[in-house]
Amino acid sequence: MHKLFSGRYKKTGFQPGEMLYTGEKNQEPNIHIFQYNEKEVIETDLKTLDRCMDVNKKYVTWINIDSISNPLLIEKIGQCMNLNSLTMEDILTVDQRPKCENFKDYIFVILNMLRFNKGENNIIKEQLSIILAENIVITFQDGIEGDVFDKLRYRIRENKGRIREKGVDFLFYSIMDAVIDEYFIVLENIGESIEDIEETLLSGKKESIVRLIQGMKKDLVFLRKEIWPVRELLIELDRNDSRFIKDETKIFLRDIYDHVAQLIDTVEILRDILSEQFDIYLSDINNKINEIMKFLTVIMTVFMPLTFLTGLYGMNFKFMPGLDNPIGFYILLGAMASITVVMLLFFRMRKLI
Amino acid sequence: MHKLFSGRYKKTGFQPGEMLYTGEKNQEPNIHIFQYNEKEVIETDLKTLDRCMDVNKKYVTWINIDSISNPLLIEKIGQCMNLNSLTMEDILTVDQRPKCENFKDYIFVILNMLRFNKGENNIIKEQLSIILAENIVITFQDGIEGDVFDKLRYRIRENKGRIREKGVDFLFYSIMDAVIDEYFIVLENIGESIEDIEETLLSGKKESIVRLIQGMKKDLVFLRKEIWPVRELLIELDRNDSRFIKDETKIFLRDIYDHVAQLIDTVEILRDILSEQFDIYLSDINNKINEIMKFLTVIMTVFMPLTFLTGLYGMNFKFMPGLDNPIGFYILLGAMASITVVMLLFFRMRKLI
Amino acid sequence: MHKLFSGRYKKTGFQPGEMLYTGEKNQEPNIHIFQYNEKEVIETDLKTLDRCMDVNKKYVTWINIDSISNPLLIEKIGQCMNLNSLTMEDILTVDQRPKCENFKDYIFVILNMLRFNKGENNIIKEQLSIILAENIVITFQDGIEGDVFDKLRYRIRENKGRIREKGVDFLFYSIMDAVIDEYFIVLENIGESIEDIEETLLSGKKESIVRLIQGMKKDLVFLRKEIWPVRELLIELDRNDSRFIKDETKIFLRDIYDHVAQLIDTVEILRDILSEQFDIYLSDINNKINEIMKFLTVIMTVFMPLTFLTGLYGMNFKFMPGLDNPIGFYILLGAMASITVVMLLFFRMRKLI
Amino acid sequence: MHKLFSGRYKKTGFQPGEMLYTGEKNQEPNIHIFQYNEKEVIETDLKTLDRCMDVNKKYVTWINIDSISNPLLIEKIGQCMNLNSLTMEDILTVDQRPKCENFKDYIFVILNMLRFNKGENNIIKEQLSIILAENIVITFQDGIEGDVFDKLRYRIRENKGRIREKGVDFLFYSIMDAVIDEYFIVLENIGESIEDIEETLLSGKKESIVRLIQGMKKDLVFLRKEIWPVRELLIELDRNDSRFIKDETKIFLRDIYDHVAQLIDTVEILRDILSEQFDIYLSDINNKINEIMKFLTVIMTVFMPLTFLTGLYGMNFKFMPGLDNPIGFYILLGAMASITVVMLLFFRMRKLI
Amino acid sequence: MHKLFSGRYKKTGFQPGEMLYTGEKNQEPNIHIFQYNEKEVIETDLKTLDRCMDVNKKYVTWINIDSISNPLLIEKIGQCMNLNSLTMEDILTVDQRPKCENFKDYIFVILNMLRFNKGENNIIKEQLSIILAENIVITFQDGIEGDVFDKLRYRIRENKGRIREKGVDFLFYSIMDAVIDEYFIVLENIGESIEDIEETLLSGKKESIVRLIQGMKKDLVFLRKEIWPVRELLIELDRNDSRFIKDETKIFLRDIYDHVAQLIDTVEILRDILSEQFDIYLSDINNKINEIMKFLTVIMTVFMPLTFLTGLYGMNFKFMPGLDNPIGFYILLGAMASITVVMLLFFRMRKLI
Repeated sequence: MHKLFSGRYKKTGFQPGEMLYTGEKNQEPNIHIFQYNEKEVIETDLKTLDRCMDVNKKYVTWINIDSISNPLLIEKIGQCMNLNSLTMEDILTVDQRPKCENFKDYIFVILNMLRFNKGENNIIKEQLSIILAENIVITFQDGIEGDVFDKLRYRIRENKGRIREKGVDFLFYSIMDAVIDEYFIVLENIGESIEDIEETLLSGKKESIVRLIQGMKKDLVFLRKEIWPVRELLIELDRNDSRFIKDETKIFLRDIYDHVAQLIDTVEILRDILSEQFDIYLSDINNKINEIMKFLTVIMTVFMPLTFLTGLYGMNFKFMPGLDNPIGFYILLGAMASITVVMLLFFRMRKLI
Repeated sequence: MHKLFSGRYKKTGFQPGEMLYTGEKNQEPNIHIFQYNEKEVIETDLKTLDRCMDVNKKYVTWINIDSISNPLLIEKIGQCMNLNSLTMEDILTVDQRPKCENFKDYIFVILNMLRFNKGENNIIKEQLSIILAENIVITFQDGIEGDVFDKLRYRIRENKGRIREKGVDFLFYSIMDAVIDEYFIVLENIGESIEDIEETLLSGKKESIVRLIQGMKKDLVFLRKEIWPVRELLIELDRNDSRFIKDETKIFLRDIYDHVAQLIDTVEILRDILSEQFDIYLSDINNKINEIMKFLTVIMTVFMPLTFLTGLYGMNFKFMPGLDNPIGFYILLGAMASITVVMLLFFRMRKLI
Repeated sequence: MHKLFSGRYKKTGFQPGEMLYTGEKNQEPNIHIFQYNEKEVIETDLKTLDRCMDVNKKYVTWINIDSISNPLLIEKIGQCMNLNSLTMEDILTVDQRPKCENFKDYIFVILNMLRFNKGENNIIKEQLSIILAENIVITFQDGIEGDVFDKLRYRIRENKGRIREKGVDFLFYSIMDAVIDEYFIVLENIGESIEDIEETLLSGKKESIVRLIQGMKKDLVFLRKEIWPVRELLIELDRNDSRFIKDETKIFLRDIYDHVAQLIDTVEILRDILSEQFDIYLSDINNKINEIMKFLTVIMTVFMPLTFLTGLYGMNFKFMPGLDNPIGFYILLGAMASITVVMLLFFRMRKLI
Repeated sequence: MHKLFSGRYKKTGFQPGEMLYTGEKNQEPNIHIFQYNEKEVIETDLKTLDRCMDVNKKYVTWINIDSISNPLLIEKIGQCMNLNSLTMEDILTVDQRPKCENFKDYIFVILNMLRFNKGENNIIKEQLSIILAENIVITFQDGIEGDVFDKLRYRIRENKGRIREKGVDFLFYSIMDAVIDEYFIVLENIGESIEDIEETLLSGKKESIVRLIQGMKKDLVFLRKEIWPVRELLIELDRNDSRFIKDETKIFLRDIYDHVAQLIDTVEILRDILSEQFDIYLSDINNKINEIMKFLTVIMTVFMPLTFLTGLYGMNFKFMPGLDNPIGFYILLGAMASITVVMLLFFRMRKLI
Repeated sequence: MHKLFSGRYKKTGFQPGEMLYTGEKNQEPNIHIFQYNEKEVIETDLKTLDRCMDVNKKYVTWINIDSISNPLLIEKIGQCMNLNSLTMEDILTVDQRPKCENFKDYIFVILNMLRFNKGENNIIKEQLSIILAENIVITFQDGIEGDVFDKLRYRIRENKGRIREKGVDFLFYSIMDAVIDEYFIVLENIGESIEDIEETLLSGKKESIVRLIQGMKKDLVFLRKEIWPVRELLIELDRNDSRFIKDETKIFLRDIYDHVAQLIDTVEILRDILSEQFDIYLSDINNKINEIMKFLTVIMTVFMPLTFLTGLYGMNFKFMPGLDNPIGFYILLGAMASITVVMLLFFRMRKLI
């Protein structure tokens, strides 16, 4: 299960804006730099950043840093880009709420990349911080397990679609779109698990179903927590009139907004469906108790009188009618059979069997 | 059951605005063209579109394309109408959230046509994309199983009502009205199923009722997901001051809005009723368990003492009182009968039987 | 039970604005005309309307039509009053959502008159359409079973209160006030039924209580559906600055608004109370199951050992201790009595009996 | 229990603004008049009001009428103060929703005084109508059982605090503050009852707990109904710019607003706690059923095989092994003891005992 | 458990603005004074305040008073700072709703410091009143058990971070940040308790789990009550344009706002998780009842027929078949074994065992 708490509380008490990495992954960051325009693409990989890059106005520049475990690197970039100290603190603090902040020199966005881990049936989360400034986008990832940008990189390299013709704000949009698209795959996986639960409910093997339903519910609660703030973030991006986002790009951001609205709808629907599945499960248990009670009642009701009769004729009274009768035993057996038949008919009438 | 996911996720990672059909139906589209004014109606059927139609200002033109499986055709129309690439992508992507978008040259609306499939008790959904531009409406349907516009076409052909006198925005309204009217029929069918459930609850044959209730609930969740965005869409249409919709037509759109508000009310009411039916079902099961327990308790409580007495007089002690008494057996039987009567009276008093 | 659906869906597909009566009552309408001012009252009853009435500015005119089964009459009035075609359609379509629409020449309001049918424990609904225009109010009722205006008419005829001194907008207010006042009586009746349920819960005869609670809940869901839109309607009336409603009358409309707010509060409270009653009912069933289980357990636990002992001494072993003892039987009886006493004490301690 | 309905419905149909007392208390009103300024206080008690008082600008005047059963008195005051007819009707109609209305000549506020009746565990409600006009406050109470103003009167008489230095709007505020402060005591009492329920839940005597919880829930529902409108009322008072309330007094009204917000929070919290208590109660019942079932099962499972064995050796077959064995009886007893021990160990393992 | 009520109600009836301490702690306050600028820090401890301090414009001054049990001291400070009487009353009244009030001369904020008491599993609350005025911050704590400012003081003394370079509004922000950071630790602790509950649910020892879940729920309800008003408070601080808070500091306040939003999200998630845990617990009980019923039914169903057969052959009829048969006993035993095997197979088929 994704942890509900991590990072944040470890640094309570430290001064605001203090540089401290709160994640768990420790590995040297790789700095990947894309510089492209309609005509060419330059890719560079660096391990450290000795001096500030000069952002060439001829190119759109995308710097991707795949690990935030080195505070010095972040600090260096912060100085180069003139980042607010709170922004730098936010980049280093994992497990944050998605948000969007407008500064004079840049737009700062925090999103979480989500992936569904099929093996363990849980959602893996990786924080992505995006800086959009003049002609440059910088992305900070918290982790090394790859990202969701392979197709985007392919499109830049091979000049597919319009991305190479468009400006840096379109790159910014494309990055966010790639992240949100991944959410659909996560929801898709949860949806499939829920359909499995449905089949399990119909088939009858229900031992672990409560835990399954609970696991799915937790995943959905977690997803909702992630997606709602993204909606606010997009409204914020749409409303402000930052000079970094052109009006023609806002149409595309509104497209992401529609996707997020659809995600939210779907999360709510899946939650409703899970609640109903739990209700069905509960009513199935009650039904079973009812069935077994009926069965037990029939058995007891049939045998109690018969056993009483055998007890009656097993008594040692000297004078009892019928004991000496040669067919007394058979008469009694007949009486018992009759009682049983009458009782079963009675139960059939009462719909107990 | 309608699938919760389809279409959308298959294309994650593709570039935004890329032309790719995400539906499942593959058949050649039929292009049906209506051109009408107060005096005449011209109907044309085409299989392909070689060149852009010139929109004759004398007529209101309605182009209906009944399948979106041919991306080339959509692309052609997109060029003719100067559609934004996102619009074209939306037309091709089925299973979208209803929405309304205003562009400089046109208004773009996505709605879903719903039909209730009585055989399988589920709702069939077909996406309808509507382009409203100068003197022309273009509708794109995703499917071949007919549509909800037969009565509208009849009214155009036979000049019933005011449609022929009015402009293209009234046609736009009439199309949306026809789609929304169909929702009432869907809700009507669900309402009837719910009344069936009520009768089943009263009659007693309740085996499959949980599944029925769950199915209905899913349908209503699905409907709510479809109808709420239509409400937003209509508010959006009412608020913006696009030149394509005349003020006198807005009164009609507000009429649709009233219908949608009524649909939403009804969906919520039906959900409430289903929840209550489930509660009744559950309390019925509990009641039955209670009834059976009472019955079992009465049986056991009556026979246990009698069986004990028979056991008592079945013991092999040499000296036991009454065994030699000629009427000992009958005295015991009398005692047993008395005990039974007293017990039954006791149960009657305690309202157990 | 009031039907959830009626009217609306029967006409899907017909052209918007088409004149078609969707109700079920077929009888000739009666046209009742009040014309009054401070000094005099003229009452007229007509069966048909041959020509448009001329609205005499000296009088306030109230035309009440008690049946809408004659579309021709409505059409005639529509022409006289210059009604929009959608308005006329709305007047003829029963089972609509309460609403308020402002037109240049008139204000159009739809309300529902509700009455509680004590015999069948359900709510009867009758649509009331109100047209407020210059010096005239026209009301259309769907039905013949009387209305809620008798006291209002009395006040006009006998010049009680201020109604004769005031203008047509005060008449408009008084009509709406009479309708809303009736809602209090309906709620009052439901409240009494709920108090009956409470008493039934306390007394113990609970067979049909689930159905009763469900019936009440449905009634409340229905009422909420009716009352909420009235609230919106009144806000709408208060906000718009139609020339037909004077400012001094708006204070009175705000008074109705307060009543409606109180109605909504009460509906929500009654719903809460019903939910709690259902919870009590459920916990009562569970309690009873618990009680019976305890009783059964005591009976079984007491008699099982005794029966075992009788069985023991009923065995046919040749050599068994005590069988020949003259007081063996009595010793055993004593032992049994001791066991029983000990067990009962044990149960008493465990609070089972 | 406080009645949900009273007053209002009795007068449906009467003309709006008609003077009719709807409460139940019939006694002669007492008119208590305070006139004070920084230097002196004059108190007068009247039984009737023959002519309009002249409001002396030198004093702040507070007229308190402790019963509204005399419509003539209210009418007289209405004429003197130039009250709107709707205001007078509202004063006479008990059981109204708290509200605030601004008129040209005065501000009209309806509040309810609440008191917790410890003996019967319910809330007593008394309507308080307040008129704030130039230099005068008039309060109308519906009842004779005292009020919540004793401490306020004491402060005026003894010149404690700032009330004597301040104007009539501060008196108006102080009256409302006294009423709202009383709500805290009511909530306090309910909170104590809820703590009692908690203790009862822990101790085990749970017979009447469902009724207790239900009673508390009803009280809270009732309180919420009373407090929410007070919040609206205070927002309304704060927003409007009536000349009767000075800006420096608005800070005090905002203080009441904070108290009301706190009351609302607390009501919601108490409702949550009651719901949880009910859940605990229900799970306790289920737990008990579970316990008893386990006990019964152990008893039955232990004795059924033993009884079977005694039955086996009680059969009358001529040739049965062991019957002639001198220690056959003891061997069987040993076997029975072993079976019992094994079973008990099995149950211990399965955690049934 | 934290008390739901304290303080407030004890003073109902007293005049508004009256100075009366409502808390429970009685000890002499310690007055701790920080005066710092970029270059130096002066710390002073006082026991009483004889005359107003003169606020030196060269320094940022922070006066912390760690107990409010001495009304005279508060009154003295109130006079020096020109505090409104309502503010002074609020400082002395513990258990208030967090709020923010703007006055001409100062900003007044009430927050609650929360700490989780691990020993008793509950939350300890201490009211903190903050006055922000020209160059000075005054904090009033209600209690002596230390506070959450140790790290903040350390940063001021040792000149860590930016606090010494910034103005008094940054100090104001830092104080609030320290309080809110502590909330994360409280939530963290609750989260850990909830994970413990999860493990307990899986392991099976579930006796006290209902009380544990209820305790956690109460804590969360309490936390929500505390955190929501803080959110409003921060919106209020952000919106108003008081001269005491510089724009560059508002970015930091927005950072706190983000933290509070995250806290609210987490509280809601934890509530959802607790509700699911309770559902799992309930379904576990039902499952167990079901299991035991199945076991009991199997035992009864197997032994009832066998016991009946032994009774049959224990009867004393003279003429019964098989009694004289030398292997009759063994035939019967064989028949019994067969019946048992058939029954167990039947139960296996029906999945009862």
